[in-house]
Amino acid sequence: MKLYGYWRSTAAYRVRIALHLKGIDFESIPVNLVKNGGEQYQDNYSELNPNHLVPTLVDGDFSLNQSLAIIDYLEQRNSEYTLYPQDIKSRAKAKALALDIACEVHPLNNLRVQQYLSNTLMISDEAKQVWLEHWMTIGFMAIEKQLTGSAGKYCFADKVSVADICLVAQVYNAHRFKVDMSAYPLITKVVNNCNELPAFIKALPENQADAP
Amino acid sequence: MKLYGYWRSTAAYRVRIALHLKGIDFESIPVNLVKNGGEQYQDNYSELNPNHLVPTLVDGDFSLNQSLAIIDYLEQRNSEYTLYPQDIKSRAKAKALALDIACEVHPLNNLRVQQYLSNTLMISDEAKQVWLEHWMTIGFMAIEKQLTGSAGKYCFADKVSVADICLVAQVYNAHRFKVDMSAYPLITKVVNNCNELPAFIKALPENQADAP
Repeated sequence: MKLYGYWRSTAAYRVRIALHLKGIDFESIPVNLVKNGGEQYQDNYSELNPNHLVPTLVDGDFSLNQSLAIIDYLEQRNSEYTLYPQDIKSRAKAKALALDIACEVHPLNNLRVQQYLSNTLMISDEAKQVWLEHWMTIGFMAIEKQLTGSAGKYCFADKVSVADICLVAQVYNAHRFKVDMSAYPLITKVVNNCNELPAFIKALPENQADAP
Repeated sequence: MKLYGYWRSTAAYRVRIALHLKGIDFESIPVNLVKNGGEQYQDNYSELNPNHLVPTLVDGDFSLNQSLAIIDYLEQRNSEYTLYPQDIKSRAKAKALALDIACEVHPLNNLRVQQYLSNTLMISDEAKQVWLEHWMTIGFMAIEKQLTGSAGKYCFADKVSVADICLVAQVYNAHRFKVDMSAYPLITKVVNNCNELPAFIKALPENQADAP
């Protein structure tokens, strides 16, 4: 399998964690999102991913975008190490928590939105920082509340799931933008526990070959 | 089952379509997102949904947010009428297309983001319209391209799937904001085919009891 990604992409980071947790070998192919106006807009990559976003997974002649669809595909290909809780309700809750991040927090803060805010709406760096913190804070407050009912060592009891994968990548992003995390002790505990696992360490942005 | 929603919410609209397609009886409970500062911020509803978003499904003592997690839960509860293609690759592609809308288009254009743009960033109505059209256009262009390889009567061959559900709700939103859809003949064809089906008609925003 080949994974087209970028060291700092939150969405690519999620898929790297999933691949490492499942012990699936893969080749990492960097798509530099910032050099030369963004390699994601070059013809070769646009053919693979018309959204001009990373990641894209290529498995033989099959290509797939969207990190959560990729994680689901990996689950169906190799369910020995499952990333979903087994009972139907916890499973649904874990997917909802992953989507709380993937649909409500991340899309508002990714690179292309930041570029639009700065270059088209021409808002100041301070206003952009307030924007980033606003959506992360709303998202983390809701997640912290939900974790009181579900968390053990990880988001759902003591088993790593897709929810932890999304949370760890989003909290990495929060630290990058210096968002105050002191109001979220459960999130912090879960993320620290995850970050002790080899799969999460291998997937860290700074441990990728294309990190500067 | 009870569905907390709002007639005009794109995400609640998705779940209504899924429930009707599966023939599941449900009670619709309106949460008015605009009256009195938004009923989604009132204590009762915030307890159910700490994200202050609709929809929320309540099934006995179990509550669940996030439209795509809800659709997945309904699928596991009642898979007689499935909303996912059966082969693993088409299934993954359908999920990716649903996420292309749910993660890349809808979150940038929903009510709370429009409110932030107007009230906090204080951009003009014209600039807000350009913002809305920008993200929808980028999203629809990528989807139109993907449909050339997959569409039949619907997004994936001749069977309605989760991808159609998300697409129909997003295109409804595009018409509401007068986005030019003439460059997307495949999207238009698929959406028109869906909108002939009783489940899609019953789920239409204007056919809800809380529509003005």
